[in-house]
Amino acid sequence: MKNQLSNNADQRTVFLVSDSTGITIEGMARALLSQFPIHFKQIIRRYIDTIEKADQTIAEIHVASKDEAELPLVLTSIVDPEVRQHMEKLNGVVIDLIAPLLPQMEAVLGVKAERVAGHSHSLHYARNYLQRIDAVHFAMEHDDGQGQRHYENADVILVGLSRCGKTPACLYLSMHYGLFAANYPLVESDLQRPEIPECLQRYRDRLFGLTIAAQRLHQIRQQRLPDTRYASRVQCEQEVRQLEALYRQWRLPNLDVTERSVEEIATAVLAHTKK
Amino acid sequence: MKNQLSNNADQRTVFLVSDSTGITIEGMARALLSQFPIHFKQIIRRYIDTIEKADQTIAEIHVASKDEAELPLVLTSIVDPEVRQHMEKLNGVVIDLIAPLLPQMEAVLGVKAERVAGHSHSLHYARNYLQRIDAVHFAMEHDDGQGQRHYENADVILVGLSRCGKTPACLYLSMHYGLFAANYPLVESDLQRPEIPECLQRYRDRLFGLTIAAQRLHQIRQQRLPDTRYASRVQCEQEVRQLEALYRQWRLPNLDVTERSVEEIATAVLAHTKK
Repeated sequence: MKNQLSNNADQRTVFLVSDSTGITIEGMARALLSQFPIHFKQIIRRYIDTIEKADQTIAEIHVASKDEAELPLVLTSIVDPEVRQHMEKLNGVVIDLIAPLLPQMEAVLGVKAERVAGHSHSLHYARNYLQRIDAVHFAMEHDDGQGQRHYENADVILVGLSRCGKTPACLYLSMHYGLFAANYPLVESDLQRPEIPECLQRYRDRLFGLTIAAQRLHQIRQQRLPDTRYASRVQCEQEVRQLEALYRQWRLPNLDVTERSVEEIATAVLAHTKK
Repeated sequence: MKNQLSNNADQRTVFLVSDSTGITIEGMARALLSQFPIHFKQIIRRYIDTIEKADQTIAEIHVASKDEAELPLVLTSIVDPEVRQHMEKLNGVVIDLIAPLLPQMEAVLGVKAERVAGHSHSLHYARNYLQRIDAVHFAMEHDDGQGQRHYENADVILVGLSRCGKTPACLYLSMHYGLFAANYPLVESDLQRPEIPECLQRYRDRLFGLTIAAQRLHQIRQQRLPDTRYASRVQCEQEVRQLEALYRQWRLPNLDVTERSVEEIATAVLAHTKK
């Protein structure tokens, strides 16, 4: 019974088909789909850059959506016109997210688009590949207070309480923007003294503070080390109170990360450092 | 003299204006701009989500492009219609990359889009935030052959020569896809024995090999430890030859990373693990 098997009105499957890594279409799909009050189940196929792979993907989509009430919804980002047109043989709704923009860009730029898959990664990243790799290694070697003797090479030093998200933010900044990002955990002994920890004083222009709601910190630490003093609600509340007082006293730029993803934390730091 | 100061025909400045992290528009701009044989200088403004910030951005763009021959080209991804329309007061070409797609999506889905900034990160990432953070810590603790006693928790174990890109690929997989990714360096003693290293034998289904052109490996290692045996052309050639023979013998799925970005390596591994 097709209707009984189908998803309810608040859930919908969306297929994403990319001719390259799929990273751009994942981001675009997120930007678009998050504007609708529907729960989407996303199924992605990457590196679909030939007619043969497109045929195989069409067959997979037909199988995967055979019990759905609606025709399959497929978002694509395929620059090769032949492969893209081939995807339209699918019995469903196919919306390409990139191709419709190309004629407009051609008109503005006065140059014809090349329409060749996979350009974006090879072209863009080759230039700063080594910088980004070096930055990733720097972030790993300067995580959690390590490697303080090389702080003069840091573009930014994130400070904050244990488990507030410093490490992923530093790795994101290094991997995506080639920023040399260190992080230093403010522990109880740091929180009990009024001045900036000595190893950081020379670099105060590069410090950026993270803060977090005590309840959220408590949840995260509970998952890590359940029912310890470290994870207790009281301990988290006290640390956050002391931390925020210090940030005010030190006049440190800072960000509440409670409701923020790693991407949002990293790009907020980036916007602050103006790199 | 405007024309003398202007860029030549092969270079063009593009402004990217996002109401959120800017990550989606960076990806889209890359996908679009890489199709043109022009060198673009990109200037990005993030978190432009109010009329006031839009005004400030317009002023900045006018200043930054006052010596250009052409009117400024501005790509935006702003969902709030008021802020977006405000950006069009700019004296230049403003192309929004997301908004034109919303009516089409509304027609397909039969639901009105909400058009509120910042939805995409909070909605999407909240669900698997802790999984991703755990995965990042797993990747860091299982980098470069560390933590072998926890390999049973790994989704994938990357193997390959020193400095071939294993670490950034593992971090990318963990941060973006929540995959538990370990990596193990195949060193000379591993390369000289015919069998899979003992600590990996139980996990051969999770192994994925990286390989690289000897010349490229030589370049990367030269940067790290110049003029050492480790970095020498001869050494790199021999290691790559031995490595590729072992991959064939072990029938290991593997990828040549020479011309590939971190994103391409990570998503190729992901496509293989079918996660």
